[in-house]
Amino acid sequence: MGSPGARRILLPVTRNIRIRVAYDGSRFFGWQRQDGFESVQQSLEEALESLTGDAVTVRGSGRTDTGVHALAQVANFHIDTHLDDNRLWHALNAHLVEGVVVRDLETCTPEFHAQRSAVGKRYAYMMELGRFRSPFSAGRATFVRGDLDVDLMRAGARHLVGEHDFTSLASAGSPRATNVRRIFGVHLIPRRAGLGIVVGGNGFLYNMVRTLAGTLIQVGRGQVEPDAVAEILAAKDRKFAGPTAPAEGLYLVSVKYPDGWRG
Amino acid sequence: MGSPGARRILLPVTRNIRIRVAYDGSRFFGWQRQDGFESVQQSLEEALESLTGDAVTVRGSGRTDTGVHALAQVANFHIDTHLDDNRLWHALNAHLVEGVVVRDLETCTPEFHAQRSAVGKRYAYMMELGRFRSPFSAGRATFVRGDLDVDLMRAGARHLVGEHDFTSLASAGSPRATNVRRIFGVHLIPRRAGLGIVVGGNGFLYNMVRTLAGTLIQVGRGQVEPDAVAEILAAKDRKFAGPTAPAEGLYLVSVKYPDGWRG
Repeated sequence: MGSPGARRILLPVTRNIRIRVAYDGSRFFGWQRQDGFESVQQSLEEALESLTGDAVTVRGSGRTDTGVHALAQVANFHIDTHLDDNRLWHALNAHLVEGVVVRDLETCTPEFHAQRSAVGKRYAYMMELGRFRSPFSAGRATFVRGDLDVDLMRAGARHLVGEHDFTSLASAGSPRATNVRRIFGVHLIPRRAGLGIVVGGNGFLYNMVRTLAGTLIQVGRGQVEPDAVAEILAAKDRKFAGPTAPAEGLYLVSVKYPDGWRG
Repeated sequence: MGSPGARRILLPVTRNIRIRVAYDGSRFFGWQRQDGFESVQQSLEEALESLTGDAVTVRGSGRTDTGVHALAQVANFHIDTHLDDNRLWHALNAHLVEGVVVRDLETCTPEFHAQRSAVGKRYAYMMELGRFRSPFSAGRATFVRGDLDVDLMRAGARHLVGEHDFTSLASAGSPRATNVRRIFGVHLIPRRAGLGIVVGGNGFLYNMVRTLAGTLIQVGRGQVEPDAVAEILAAKDRKFAGPTAPAEGLYLVSVKYPDGWRG
């Protein structure tokens, strides 16, 4: 209870907001803002600016390339607004362009940082198998002609689980202190006329999931022995792994945080 | 065995070819050819003409409207070609525009007629449920805000099974001798963040599946009692049924023929 003479003033307070975002990567030039190319980050920032009148920086858990989709990318931003979380959520979605949707929005602790706080990510690589590409899969899954031997792929995938130096699966990208990452699991999920590879880990190098997919496709075709996957990793040289599979099959599925919250 | 003097001449023979076709209805102005609007029929006929040099008429099992998809539309056409079925299949797909794929092709009996020989069809009506539309469902499923009570919908759907006059579910279209059709079954199939209605029958009136879907959505929302579906049919008047649900959720799943072949 305030003293009788105190005036209650509703001052805007800067809040740290975290969001889960789904987007169709085929509609954007990737996550990261770049002048002259429509990105997911830009579309979120422009929607927030048109809502609040202020320039807002939206920080994602990491970049995704052109064509790569997200079921739940996580991002955060600081904002001054009288809108409560629920109203801000609806208003933000109302201002967003087609192809990107904010699935959840909440005020979080000031310390939360979508990228630095993340402790794990999960990706799915979706393939359509068959003789002809279905008219419904373009931009949503990678078409792989013919069958893949899932048992061989599972045997190959086992060598990827655990802590390894993944230099062999990384395209040259931003230099990192270390190329060692921990893969929690690689699961092969057969679908009607398709196959998904779901990979969870504490971090991923540039193009790592797409190269992992390209390598396991070679294993599934019988072009590479399952046990050769261990040798590919041990070589620490990109040229031993399979090709980088196309972006259209890749989905960022979720991002994990230490408080148990999962984007 | 021919007599020694007989010369074997490979004369082109007119064959009756049946095909199963999948297409993304959001890319076409429906199945039926109409000048100035790209249709599925036209794209097949143009591909065949560019292959053979001859004008070919492709007859479908029935029309589909703009936006309506097919997993397996069936069509047939008569063609003179030296190509065997497998080569003709591949060549036809190579000449087709994006968004339509011939899934199977075979020479059939001269009597086969994709429309008149059909004895049943199956459709699926796909809905996405939730608070916000996913970026991946546009043109592939109908977005329905909020939840639907599937048990109520199943109770309502039971009244549709069997032989009935479906005038109440039909938009004014081409006049028919009778509006009596037999529905073999209506199945409600819950999906992650979605719901499908699968309907099989010996024939469907114009917009019947979409009006059936619109009516069951009202039942699922509690706006219409499940038992009222029987009264809606008995009224034989379109104005008692629910709205015509959008085309983007509708898929022609298969067409059935008396020889057991299923398109």
